[in-house]
Amino acid sequence: MAPKYLTGDKAGIDEFLARFDVFLFDCDGVLWSGDHLFPNTAETLDMLRSKGKQLVFVTNNSTKSREDYKTKFDGKGIPAQVEEVFGSAYSAAIYISRILSLPPPKNKVFVLGESGIEAELASENIPFIGGTDPSLRRDITSEDFTNMANGSMLDPDVGVVLIGLDFHVNYLKLALAFQYLQRGAIFLATNIDSTLPMAHSFFPGAGATGAGVVTAYGKTPVALGKPSQAMMDAIEGKFRFDRARTCMVGDRLNTDIRFGIEGKLGGTLAVLTGVSRKEEFLGEGAPIVPTAYVERLADLLG
Amino acid sequence: MAPKYLTGDKAGIDEFLARFDVFLFDCDGVLWSGDHLFPNTAETLDMLRSKGKQLVFVTNNSTKSREDYKTKFDGKGIPAQVEEVFGSAYSAAIYISRILSLPPPKNKVFVLGESGIEAELASENIPFIGGTDPSLRRDITSEDFTNMANGSMLDPDVGVVLIGLDFHVNYLKLALAFQYLQRGAIFLATNIDSTLPMAHSFFPGAGATGAGVVTAYGKTPVALGKPSQAMMDAIEGKFRFDRARTCMVGDRLNTDIRFGIEGKLGGTLAVLTGVSRKEEFLGEGAPIVPTAYVERLADLLG
Repeated sequence: MAPKYLTGDKAGIDEFLARFDVFLFDCDGVLWSGDHLFPNTAETLDMLRSKGKQLVFVTNNSTKSREDYKTKFDGKGIPAQVEEVFGSAYSAAIYISRILSLPPPKNKVFVLGESGIEAELASENIPFIGGTDPSLRRDITSEDFTNMANGSMLDPDVGVVLIGLDFHVNYLKLALAFQYLQRGAIFLATNIDSTLPMAHSFFPGAGATGAGVVTAYGKTPVALGKPSQAMMDAIEGKFRFDRARTCMVGDRLNTDIRFGIEGKLGGTLAVLTGVSRKEEFLGEGAPIVPTAYVERLADLLG
Repeated sequence: MAPKYLTGDKAGIDEFLARFDVFLFDCDGVLWSGDHLFPNTAETLDMLRSKGKQLVFVTNNSTKSREDYKTKFDGKGIPAQVEEVFGSAYSAAIYISRILSLPPPKNKVFVLGESGIEAELASENIPFIGGTDPSLRRDITSEDFTNMANGSMLDPDVGVVLIGLDFHVNYLKLALAFQYLQRGAIFLATNIDSTLPMAHSFFPGAGATGAGVVTAYGKTPVALGKPSQAMMDAIEGKFRFDRARTCMVGDRLNTDIRFGIEGKLGGTLAVLTGVSRKEEFLGEGAPIVPTAYVERLADLLG
């Protein structure tokens, strides 16, 4: 069915909003783009809250913890609770602690990523190494090759390799991750977004900074971000919403909108302020089609 | 046809060697493994030279120039001439200068790789940036995102992005490569080997350190290393050999042996001292089968 265009259609907007109790929001490309806050974002969220809607901010950004995200919302003047934020790093931590349930001490995680992942692992009491460890921010040496190969440099308790967006990726960390995988570690990713929208352009995303590990190992990780339904299950486990009365709002067809469709939500809403263009879902044979779309989120104000 | 097993078969070895005037050798996994020289490598090469065979050392290793490789051979006590070495970095330089033939100054190359690539580009008088530039060995800043997005940090003369094995890969360099590609640069790779054999183990190869660019861009580069026939053409252009009287010797079925088969050489010889195992080419339906194989190169001594 063709998506309904809601921009400027006040009656259509009212009818659409009345169908849902819960709105899951992607953040980057919907509420803001990088450091640029879209106009009237806070007003739009206020309007939805005033109608009694529950809001959940679902982000594949693994560099920030939920606390970091709350701080980011505060800085932009957008009211939000830590409990309303659900990131892919938190999703991964939940998966490791509650679904994999590896017996300690063999549940240690080697992290290729930033502090947001570390914070969420810590919140679930999962031991980890790698991540932001300053001793790994250096060139590889010939001794490193030898000591990885003979295992003396490796932690025998590492049972999981978790990759996410890493602005400090280097050869040493790629090599360590690959070594742990060759020795049997479980391979997880917070998310596999290939690009990161920043400053009105595109930069390498988590799927890119971790791609060296994926290519060397020759196998893909279990991804815990959108559109993985492991993330939807984790959100549902926490918020206990009615999927039929829930709407996913996002800018990317192949992550956000697909996430909502495959999660059998009552609806999906695409915004055109991010990655995907309307030409991708209008017309015959488009593979992923939202229920409705607006030019920008604030168009919901009518 | 099943590959002939030559180890211990003196008559078989003599007959096999007599069929060829030229031997193309892969190096890592054949002559040595990382820093470990296999026994009797020099003696085997001497034997072939004494029979009047021409030797060419064909390597996908892009971190070393032909001069660097000659130095490596010298250090191991293996006689070799610079002219006998043909690396993927040199292959890429030949491709850029003689096949792409971009009009200066728009022929500048952004390099994600080491000094071997820089030396070979310089040998063909191709301008380049990136590579081992120490000013790029740092963390990315928020200003970098802005200045890449608005183009002020980018060199307008870059017409090619060339990726190879980079032990100093970082987010800043991945982002720069991706930005140049988004602005229309031609995408090349010295080679796309996923792993690098070192210290009797495996580490991320050129295909892994450049994978972040490939994933972000969503397109694969033209590869100038084995098994790309662009490399065979370049070798032939230089050495003018008779393909029917030429044999490729290597340890990897999907690069070395495939390179020889697709290049319609007279024969291929697999050694079992590297990546591929004989189970991969013995038996029904194996996709890539060498003409013959030995346990180790020195078995050719009989």
